[in-house]
Amino acid sequence: VSGPLVTLLSDFGHRDAYVGVMKARILAAAPHATIVDLAHEIPPQDVHAAAYVLETAFRWFPNTAIHVAVVDPGVGTERAAVAVWTTHGTFVAPDNGLLTPIEEGKVQAAVRLETPPGSSATFHGRDVFAPAAGRLAAGDRLAELGEPVEELVVLDDYRSRWDAVAATRVGRILHVDRFGNAITSIRREELPDTLAPLRVRVAGHDVGAPRQTYADVAPGEPLALFGSSEHLEIAVREGHAVDALGLPPGAEVVVARSAP
Amino acid sequence: VSGPLVTLLSDFGHRDAYVGVMKARILAAAPHATIVDLAHEIPPQDVHAAAYVLETAFRWFPNTAIHVAVVDPGVGTERAAVAVWTTHGTFVAPDNGLLTPIEEGKVQAAVRLETPPGSSATFHGRDVFAPAAGRLAAGDRLAELGEPVEELVVLDDYRSRWDAVAATRVGRILHVDRFGNAITSIRREELPDTLAPLRVRVAGHDVGAPRQTYADVAPGEPLALFGSSEHLEIAVREGHAVDALGLPPGAEVVVARSAP
Amino acid sequence: VSGPLVTLLSDFGHRDAYVGVMKARILAAAPHATIVDLAHEIPPQDVHAAAYVLETAFRWFPNTAIHVAVVDPGVGTERAAVAVWTTHGTFVAPDNGLLTPIEEGKVQAAVRLETPPGSSATFHGRDVFAPAAGRLAAGDRLAELGEPVEELVVLDDYRSRWDAVAATRVGRILHVDRFGNAITSIRREELPDTLAPLRVRVAGHDVGAPRQTYADVAPGEPLALFGSSEHLEIAVREGHAVDALGLPPGAEVVVARSAP
Repeated sequence: VSGPLVTLLSDFGHRDAYVGVMKARILAAAPHATIVDLAHEIPPQDVHAAAYVLETAFRWFPNTAIHVAVVDPGVGTERAAVAVWTTHGTFVAPDNGLLTPIEEGKVQAAVRLETPPGSSATFHGRDVFAPAAGRLAAGDRLAELGEPVEELVVLDDYRSRWDAVAATRVGRILHVDRFGNAITSIRREELPDTLAPLRVRVAGHDVGAPRQTYADVAPGEPLALFGSSEHLEIAVREGHAVDALGLPPGAEVVVARSAP
Repeated sequence: VSGPLVTLLSDFGHRDAYVGVMKARILAAAPHATIVDLAHEIPPQDVHAAAYVLETAFRWFPNTAIHVAVVDPGVGTERAAVAVWTTHGTFVAPDNGLLTPIEEGKVQAAVRLETPPGSSATFHGRDVFAPAAGRLAAGDRLAELGEPVEELVVLDDYRSRWDAVAATRVGRILHVDRFGNAITSIRREELPDTLAPLRVRVAGHDVGAPRQTYADVAPGEPLALFGSSEHLEIAVREGHAVDALGLPPGAEVVVARSAP
Repeated sequence: VSGPLVTLLSDFGHRDAYVGVMKARILAAAPHATIVDLAHEIPPQDVHAAAYVLETAFRWFPNTAIHVAVVDPGVGTERAAVAVWTTHGTFVAPDNGLLTPIEEGKVQAAVRLETPPGSSATFHGRDVFAPAAGRLAAGDRLAELGEPVEELVVLDDYRSRWDAVAATRVGRILHVDRFGNAITSIRREELPDTLAPLRVRVAGHDVGAPRQTYADVAPGEPLALFGSSEHLEIAVREGHAVDALGLPPGAEVVVARSAP
């Protein structure tokens, strides 16, 4: 990449020029930036899905990259807009939990972005986030963009929890990919190495132990497996798991040890 | 941007390589061009929506940019293809009203593009518009591309009108964004400064006076407000206005002063 | 284009960062690459559609371009991953028929790509195909990427056939574009120059002889015509042919000479 790398993530879709206008503003400030789209069909206002998709992507970019993520149900309210410098990249986003995937201890500095006079009440992507990313891409230091922020909003249910009474790992669906796979908050590292004795349950379905590959079940059958992000996901071989199993958004997922 | 900036707007979607092939042709002529997608999920053949989306975008680019917009229900008929140099950018498009947002008095010159021999009857994006944009991006002058055109086609109902008898401002829905908001042809500057006495009506619904923000109504309630383009839009807080209110495409929107 | 040109084609959609992560890996290896998206909304796992879309695009790029195409229902199984150098470009893809559009006699060399240790079982776009494309874009020679492959998988029904008994040309629907047009495997060069005596039949409908343009039938009427790729397509003027005519995926299409 000749110039700075900027990535964009949003729920803006492709029916409007929202993303194109953000690029105009970034390129106006940093003409040599290389801009990479991460995803713009995040379900409207789904901060959990956006956080998950950001998590799957940012580590593959150099830590000099600037990641702009705008899924912003609170636009126009008092929620803060922030820029966050970490050891694995710089992030520009609303402070609504979207940056939950940043690991603890990685944040170097965070500032609150001001809303320039004359900004739209509904499109801070254009008026706040893209201009801030453009300034960072052009070489401005984080401290020039606003006052320090001490703490960032975190999504409480973004990570799974251990239910000591039931002896189960409990998570939720974070995201549905375009194949209809339901990706959960439960990670491989949170489960025992030996998977065979486990059972995965979601929305009244018991899909058995986590498998190695789709081919471990017959076509049309449900299964659980670890996807490319090392999160447990619920799938149906050659099918659309969310439709086939009737999985509601954010549904609870439980991993238990089967009775011996 | 190292080279010339070219934007692309179309109804070509992302199931086909139509957009990618246009980029191939532009880069073949102008290898250093930076190409920015505005939007490619314009509803098929919806020239009003395309014109509106173009209007929201072009001012954010430098006036050296070349904007290629292809929503072209008349492809293969006698409609002209044009390139238009204005003080706020250069435009390449079918002459079907898509360039209505160019303000009066801004046009410096316009030419009619020829259809090269062997062109497809259905894909002038590849065979006419992209090659013309490529030539302009490579430095060709507008006059080299075709014969002058005196007048461009304008969409009569792209701008709202004042109904003097009823004392109402009358417009129409121009575009539906991905959140389901219906954006209308009525602009903030066409309404009085004091909004409180006004009432907005659409498809049998009275949604009250224009508000400042979504939070001014309860979740699920309809409202009118000015979006980031300064057009009046019909929304439902945390909902999809077009589905919730049953708004037909192009529906009439009326702003009246409420009875004192 | 300053650097090497890389195109991307997939069924990854825009709800996830799969495509963005592939770009990260390509740019990590070849920072000066120019990356062009062909299409990412190929219907999930539809290799025929992907092959067709690739066919419509690659000839418009220079033969130095690298085309990465990932529609990969067999990911994680024994299907090979390949890189293929041809006189009209270099291709990186699963060896599942996706490269059927490469013409016979154009292949210079083909190699089987290794799956690096630690690769995901479900996302070879990130772990196999993008790194291989990045190496090629950075200047690595094909032979450095893997062992030679003798033969590539071909889709048997990608090309139409002549039924000598019935004296008909028989093909199938390869792809549905976003306007609902059904593009078939029958090419203009496979039919006689004089089209008027022909009749095109699909799914119980007789849509008559191939026409020159949509305007040759009334709005709402079905027709057959040659699209911008010189394939016969089934359309409905100002309508969505697949929905209006109830065309099943992959439906058979027959062109017969009408009774004299």
